[in-house]
This record gives sequence, C-alpha cells and structure tokens, in this order.
Amino acid sequence: MKPVSPGECGEKRLDHIAIAVHSIAEALPFYEGLGLKKLEVEIVEEQGVKVAKLDIGNTHIELLEPLSPDTPVGKFLAQKGPGLHHICIGVADIEADLSKLKSSGTKLINETFKIGAGGAKIAFVHPKATGGVLLELSQPSEA
Amino acid sequence: MKPVSPGECGEKRLDHIAIAVHSIAEALPFYEGLGLKKLEVEIVEEQGVKVAKLDIGNTHIELLEPLSPDTPVGKFLAQKGPGLHHICIGVADIEADLSKLKSSGTKLINETFKIGAGGAKIAFVHPKATGGVLLELSQPSEA
Repeated sequence: MKPVSPGECGEKRLDHIAIAVHSIAEALPFYEGLGLKKLEVEIVEEQGVKVAKLDIGNTHIELLEPLSPDTPVGKFLAQKGPGLHHICIGVADIEADLSKLKSSGTKLINETFKIGAGGAKIAFVHPKATGGVLLELSQPSEA
Repeated sequence: MKPVSPGECGEKRLDHIAIAVHSIAEALPFYEGLGLKKLEVEIVEEQGVKVAKLDIGNTHIELLEPLSPDTPVGKFLAQKGPGLHHICIGVADIEADLSKLKSSGTKLINETFKIGAGGAKIAFVHPKATGGVLLELSQPSEA
C-alpha cells in the first residue's frame, strides 16, 4: 500500500492520532501484536516526551510517554489518565485554514502557526470547537 | 486521492475515529469549514445514535450524537463529556486477530465477533489493553 504523504493533492488527511500512555513498553506489544509496525521511537526534549510512531497503513498512531510528571503529557496523564491526547490533520495551507477559522470565530489555541518537529507549520484548535478533541493542524515543511 | 478500502492488501488501516458530541448540528460546521465532506448522516436505531460520517481523505471521522440520554453514547456524554468515543481499525481476518489477542492475554470486550453495520464483523478491545482508547476491530463484509 502506497503511503500517502501529508497534504497530498491539497486535501486534508488524518496525519496521526496521538495516545498518551504511562509506558510505551507496556502499550506497544498490543499494537505490534496487531501487526502495526513501529517506525521510530524519538525523544522530543523540548516537549518532555518520548514518542513511538506506528504505521497503520493509511495513517500513523503515536504513543506518547512523558519523560517526567512535570511535562504537558505527564500532567495530562495525572489529570485524565491514559487515552487519546490529540488528533492531527495534515493540511496544505495552514495560514489559509487559520485565517478561515478565525473569521468564523473558531476557538483556537494558536492563532498563528508555530514551527514543530521536522519544520512543519503547526497550530492547535481548542477542543471546544471540535467536539471535545484537541486537534492539531500540520503543514509539512515540503508542502 | 484514491479512497483506500478497509482491509486492502490484508493490512491494517484506521477505518475511522468516532467522536461523541451533544449535537452534530453544532459540531459539523467546524469540520465542514476545514473542507471535510459530509458523506452521510444515518440513524442507527439499535444503538440509539445519529452518525455523521465525514471524509478526511485517507480515513473517516464520525460524529456520534445520542438519540436520548439513555443510550451508550448518551451515558458516555453524561459521564465524560464530548470527545473521542472510539477508534476503529479495519482488518482482513478478525477471527485470526481475536485468536492471537486472546492467546496473548489481551483484555477484550468481545471475545468473538458480532455483526455490525453493513454486515461487518466487529469486536471491541478493552481500553486497558490499548493505552486507554476504546478500540474496534472491523472486518468489512466484502473482505
């Protein structure tokens, strides 16, 4: 199956879903047992998180393990327990999307994009606007 | 972008993510504003839920609105508020997957598949096994 690159055709796509877990080592065997392939495990120091990226054919699942309790994912776990942390939608033109969302009065966490992993332009939409789900928009650096 | 059918190539894929909302009418404009196309809105009487299915290129997002408070999604909303309800992984051979999961001691909600919408064979894996996410396996009837 051909991997679909983020933002292909200028259309939206689900780039990944991110699940906060206490321990990647404990959560991983289930997903690997299902046949998902672990692509990489990465430490993202500035966010205080270890990320295991799993290939599920048409998109990715990321398992997020906090490096310490005093990190965004550590606090999330303490408050809510393990579970979905956010979903990420790949977009082709994040500035156009943010502008449209702002003009429609959508509640945004980031009104302008910031630069995320791999140089992607990213911004978060508030769960109040999405039906209770923290939602990331991401325009990959090559788009 | 060519739609990828569930279970294609015998590989796993993310079939959909389902978000529980109080009101599809209130949640939909955000997703439509982002450019996602509403494919259908369906009443599933036996589950007491209205489902809006949205195309996001490589997979689907489903918005679930309970038909009354005394339904699974109605109780979910009362307990947890709006947010992710479950994710669904499309599989090619659900019996083989369930057998493998059982033999590895994975906590399942359904030890054998049941028949869901469209004649698909479905089974739910317990959030304790997945990192806190209710996870559906679904083998479409044509696979």
